[in-house]
Amino acid sequence: MLTLWGNIESGNVYKVRLLWSWLGLAHRRIDVDQTRDEPATAAFRAVNPIGKVPAVRLEDGRVLGESGAILQFFANGTRFWPDDAWGQAEVLRWMFFEQYSHEPALAVNRYIRRFMAGRDAFDEERLRRNHLRGERALQVMEDRLAMADWLVGDGPTIADLALYPYTDLAEEGGFPLAPYPGIRRWLARMAEQPGHFPMRQETAVEVLGFTA
Amino acid sequence: MLTLWGNIESGNVYKVRLLWSWLGLAHRRIDVDQTRDEPATAAFRAVNPIGKVPAVRLEDGRVLGESGAILQFFANGTRFWPDDAWGQAEVLRWMFFEQYSHEPALAVNRYIRRFMAGRDAFDEERLRRNHLRGERALQVMEDRLAMADWLVGDGPTIADLALYPYTDLAEEGGFPLAPYPGIRRWLARMAEQPGHFPMRQETAVEVLGFTA
Repeated sequence: MLTLWGNIESGNVYKVRLLWSWLGLAHRRIDVDQTRDEPATAAFRAVNPIGKVPAVRLEDGRVLGESGAILQFFANGTRFWPDDAWGQAEVLRWMFFEQYSHEPALAVNRYIRRFMAGRDAFDEERLRRNHLRGERALQVMEDRLAMADWLVGDGPTIADLALYPYTDLAEEGGFPLAPYPGIRRWLARMAEQPGHFPMRQETAVEVLGFTA
Repeated sequence: MLTLWGNIESGNVYKVRLLWSWLGLAHRRIDVDQTRDEPATAAFRAVNPIGKVPAVRLEDGRVLGESGAILQFFANGTRFWPDDAWGQAEVLRWMFFEQYSHEPALAVNRYIRRFMAGRDAFDEERLRRNHLRGERALQVMEDRLAMADWLVGDGPTIADLALYPYTDLAEEGGFPLAPYPGIRRWLARMAEQPGHFPMRQETAVEVLGFTA
């Protein structure tokens, strides 16, 4: 059975859980708590040297990190990863956009607002700058989704999956979605996909604690 | 002929120029100046809605953005993008690591130190935090390159290409490479590849100015 390291409150972990649900793949989950800095421990770095969740272990023991790489590996050969070179490049374009221009604004502001105990002047300035970056990222998505159902092509791909969690959680990061009707329709469309479930619903066959 | 939007001082632009040189592909370059915020202009956003260089135009007029997506598109079908699913996932793992954990530390600190006119207390704190993140990223690379010639498999791939520019420029960002002998050997190996050239050497057939 597949093993997933990560916490249920992480959008990056949710991406993998959602793809596996779309594909009907069972997994066990090892709960690694970001708020206690468990990903940075030596014990977790022995699993994933980058010290970040999610990480996954295949049945043959190989381990893979980085949500984008995990999505591409499991989507390869399915309808969620295009066959043609141009479609693949467009999917990766959205996925790199998400990791560089979207997640560091939307997810980081959500993390600061929701999980950080105290904020100093530096954090307040990060929130302010990230807010501007996040609004630009949402507008880039809106420009596409105002005129198309999906980010690439005519059906859902791992580009949609990669952008879904932190867009769906945008309001927790201080980004109201009222000004983005295309995004709101797309979020509703994603929630209608077979195998969909909300982030905080457990989907693992078993959940194990992480011991550093 | 291929068209590339970007400035010669950008490591992200250099990645594309270097792959095209490895592959023997000619291009013209439209010089877009980041220090004058030209990527953020409406004229450039009409080319690439994300407002970032590099962007490329194919001969048939299609435009692609995000260095990682551009690298994958042009490497597809060559020895720089593996044939097998696991190799592809490992390449993408390093490329997402670069964009999320490496470039935002090494490239951003280089940018602040080299190109920003004035620094305030916020910038000093960014430099300090990014320095810690950058040292961790370099150590992750060193752990691999201490025992292997290339990041994935037995030869250079676009994973090496994606990590090369800002690792080679690390000292401009305040990261001495003396503690990383594996990285230094790998940098030398990269510089020996056929088609290699240093970043600030012009390789475009023609260079056009950008007009906003």
